[in-house]
Amino acid sequence: MLVLILFGCYNAFHVRMTNEPEEILMASIEDFKKIELVVAQIKEVKEHPNADRLYILQVDTGKDVRQIVAGIRKAYTPEQLINRRIILIANMDPAVIRGEVSNGMLLAASDENAMALLAPDKDMALGSIVK
Amino acid sequence: MLVLILFGCYNAFHVRMTNEPEEILMASIEDFKKIELVVAQIKEVKEHPNADRLYILQVDTGKDVRQIVAGIRKAYTPEQLINRRIILIANMDPAVIRGEVSNGMLLAASDENAMALLAPDKDMALGSIVK
Repeated sequence: MLVLILFGCYNAFHVRMTNEPEEILMASIEDFKKIELVVAQIKEVKEHPNADRLYILQVDTGKDVRQIVAGIRKAYTPEQLINRRIILIANMDPAVIRGEVSNGMLLAASDENAMALLAPDKDMALGSIVK
Repeated sequence: MLVLILFGCYNAFHVRMTNEPEEILMASIEDFKKIELVVAQIKEVKEHPNADRLYILQVDTGKDVRQIVAGIRKAYTPEQLINRRIILIANMDPAVIRGEVSNGMLLAASDENAMALLAPDKDMALGSIVK
């Protein structure tokens, strides 16, 4: 246990010390394994009453149906989202975003002009693990 | 600086102490920000000479063309992969996998029967950040 704790300290120290502008911080496989990415499906879409960029979504993770808040309203209509498979960070600390609970975060790619949801290229079972 | 280091130690300690079977370890937005996910494109596919599950891929990240080793050979032919957009962990520590350098990791979802590469649902610019 002590060795693991010290190793954790070393990692934290190493990351902070190398946190220079323009420098690329590297990530380990252990860093990635902390993030639980799963295939989920959007079951319900509501407009956030207090934020015109946000939707309140109910998503099925294969284990539960949960609420997330997502900033994709400028890029997708509700009709484009219903039943769509998404990639969800399933173990994200819950957050309250403009008064609404968000139990996860979906993944989307952004460039200067557009936003694109990530999806598996086949209709995988809900809850399928991404790695 | 000292505060940051101690905070890192606390985090490491906390994670180790709560690492019980069946317990879900939560991730913070900071954990996720450590992982640099980008849209990349597969430019070349070779079979790994020493591992029949692995391909050696050259992928374009928009900033560089780099080699990665990926365990997707049972699920995709080279023809299915060429020019395909993928999601790459771009800041992964380099690894040597069966004698070949891998400078990143692509994301795929797996269930009992199949494997599916993740992709953006539009042809985003290479290097687009996923968040």
